[in-house]
Amino acid sequence: MPETHGRRRAALRGLLTGAGVEALLVTDLLNIRYLTGFTGSNAALLLHAGGDGETLFCTDGRYTTQSAAEVPDLETVVDRASAAALVAKAAKAPQTYGQLGFESQHVSVEQYEALRQEVPLKRTPGLVEKLREVKDEAEIEALRQACAAADRALDDLLAAGGLRPGRTELEIARDLENRMLEHGSAAPSFASIIAAGAHSAIPHHQPTHAELKRGDFVKLDFGATVDGYHSDMTRTFVLGAPADWQREVYELVHAAQAAGVDAVVPGTEVSDVDAAARKVIADAGHGEHFAHGLGHGVGLQIHEAPSFAATGVGTLAAGMAVTVEPGVYLAGRGGVRIEDTLVVRAGEPELLTLSTKNLVVV
Amino acid sequence: MPETHGRRRAALRGLLTGAGVEALLVTDLLNIRYLTGFTGSNAALLLHAGGDGETLFCTDGRYTTQSAAEVPDLETVVDRASAAALVAKAAKAPQTYGQLGFESQHVSVEQYEALRQEVPLKRTPGLVEKLREVKDEAEIEALRQACAAADRALDDLLAAGGLRPGRTELEIARDLENRMLEHGSAAPSFASIIAAGAHSAIPHHQPTHAELKRGDFVKLDFGATVDGYHSDMTRTFVLGAPADWQREVYELVHAAQAAGVDAVVPGTEVSDVDAAARKVIADAGHGEHFAHGLGHGVGLQIHEAPSFAATGVGTLAAGMAVTVEPGVYLAGRGGVRIEDTLVVRAGEPELLTLSTKNLVVV
Repeated sequence: MPETHGRRRAALRGLLTGAGVEALLVTDLLNIRYLTGFTGSNAALLLHAGGDGETLFCTDGRYTTQSAAEVPDLETVVDRASAAALVAKAAKAPQTYGQLGFESQHVSVEQYEALRQEVPLKRTPGLVEKLREVKDEAEIEALRQACAAADRALDDLLAAGGLRPGRTELEIARDLENRMLEHGSAAPSFASIIAAGAHSAIPHHQPTHAELKRGDFVKLDFGATVDGYHSDMTRTFVLGAPADWQREVYELVHAAQAAGVDAVVPGTEVSDVDAAARKVIADAGHGEHFAHGLGHGVGLQIHEAPSFAATGVGTLAAGMAVTVEPGVYLAGRGGVRIEDTLVVRAGEPELLTLSTKNLVVV
Repeated sequence: MPETHGRRRAALRGLLTGAGVEALLVTDLLNIRYLTGFTGSNAALLLHAGGDGETLFCTDGRYTTQSAAEVPDLETVVDRASAAALVAKAAKAPQTYGQLGFESQHVSVEQYEALRQEVPLKRTPGLVEKLREVKDEAEIEALRQACAAADRALDDLLAAGGLRPGRTELEIARDLENRMLEHGSAAPSFASIIAAGAHSAIPHHQPTHAELKRGDFVKLDFGATVDGYHSDMTRTFVLGAPADWQREVYELVHAAQAAGVDAVVPGTEVSDVDAAARKVIADAGHGEHFAHGLGHGVGLQIHEAPSFAATGVGTLAAGMAVTVEPGVYLAGRGGVRIEDTLVVRAGEPELLTLSTKNLVVV
């Protein structure tokens, strides 16, 4: 989809003057993928404000065939030292390239020290990330498919009786990941968190050989990847009849999650979204048992802007894709987290993860 | 294995005086894992030359339980802004911490600009990476297990007739990755490259829905992960009777690979290892069809130092783990790569990937 990438490059050009540069050296591989479609592991892009005619793409000899297919619309330089090669070209044509900006939140101090021997570089952090916060419909469709793959995998797992006493956390992780592949996921969007019993009180537990037992909470936090876009969903189940404390914690988190989703409206401060869900949990006396942020943006990265946290800054805009994932964790006993991926829309948000959030007893 | 990590921290302390610092801020997560055993996604370490008594570890609230288990032997600060929190502590006790070094090849320009508001920082790139080049026996055992998982998965795939006309590259990738999991791999060590027919001429091809056909080369480049350590192996097969050109290219790459392995001896310049294999291919008139480096170090990263390339610098030392992976790629027709992971030893290297390198017709 060269038109899509050309449109994104044009949008980025609109930010260069405000940043005080005539050209931007893009070195982050995800930003390069977003702007060009290139999916290899070594590349740089020198995006010129004047247009694609003066814009240069660079990758190494392993990718000549692939870059010709993926990036047919830009002049391509083949050089292993991709960023240095483009900066050297800019240094030789200062009238054309003028002041260069660079992705100072990605470029390391060592790399910067080497590049600035060639040409002066201005710190211009976060320009492409700013664009990436608001997804276009092609991106939302990829996210929708990734979320659907995760939903279907969970459906299949439950239908096959995959959550039962005696199975291990690791077995369930593999089972779920394979089912996502069957439904079109290229790879898990992150290392699946499968946490049974007391492990469910560890927010980012890594699956072990521990077996599920009757009476356990089982927390599943997992996602799929489609066209590079990540889904993210958490559901928590109970094995057998829930105890009163389990039902109470579950319903509390469920209510907090709904309050968070309700707050996802264009124009809202991101800290207010966090506060909307956090208040429900704090009012029930469990504030200290919810020690992480409420959610985050998702897209080409599993965690990207915006961040729903008490310290987060910025406001929501239509087209942002975010998670809402409150939790209550009681150390040594168990914990519940419920998480959706959704798109900010005028009016109500569009839920992309559709698995039920009612308490399911398996 | 807290002793192992304590020993590595002691070895790192031996490098601090030479680097002109009294303490080192370690922010790269793999370096932190190497030095402490911590496997979470947010941490920093302030390693003091004086010993573990003045050394501080920091992670956030999600990891308090996990860090207590994984890093029982260091004082732990809980703060989401891990690097900034440790630098702030050092700024308050300048007599204790003195001159601080930082990992300037990992820290971004933006992060550095923020940190140096607190305290002056000296660029000390690559200290931990230098240590990591030579593996200890615990690391080599993890690599051995990862390579064994890949070997067994390939055995199983072939025994099950997994390489046959009509199957797709993507199906084979999934099949192979699942078999590695069965043999103890935690995850694929990178996105498997399964390339059939003309695709095999693309060095880093991503698997597609393309079906294998009789007469195709099929190139499999894949690996397993055990305890965070990566294996890396490439084998190329022929579906049905090989054509003369296929046999010729295969035997050429096979001979080049053997020449490369023979050159893996302590004290050898890394560029000479590259040259030893490259000469075989160039002498046969295919120099331009081998456009990448001969190999790379493997460990906690799939690509780490040293690098076997014409421009590589440094010499081999016993205990380094490396790949040797020449290839010949004929655009539009097909290509062959053969790759092993091996350990540099006094005398002959120790091969960790043991699958046959003779031409296998399936």
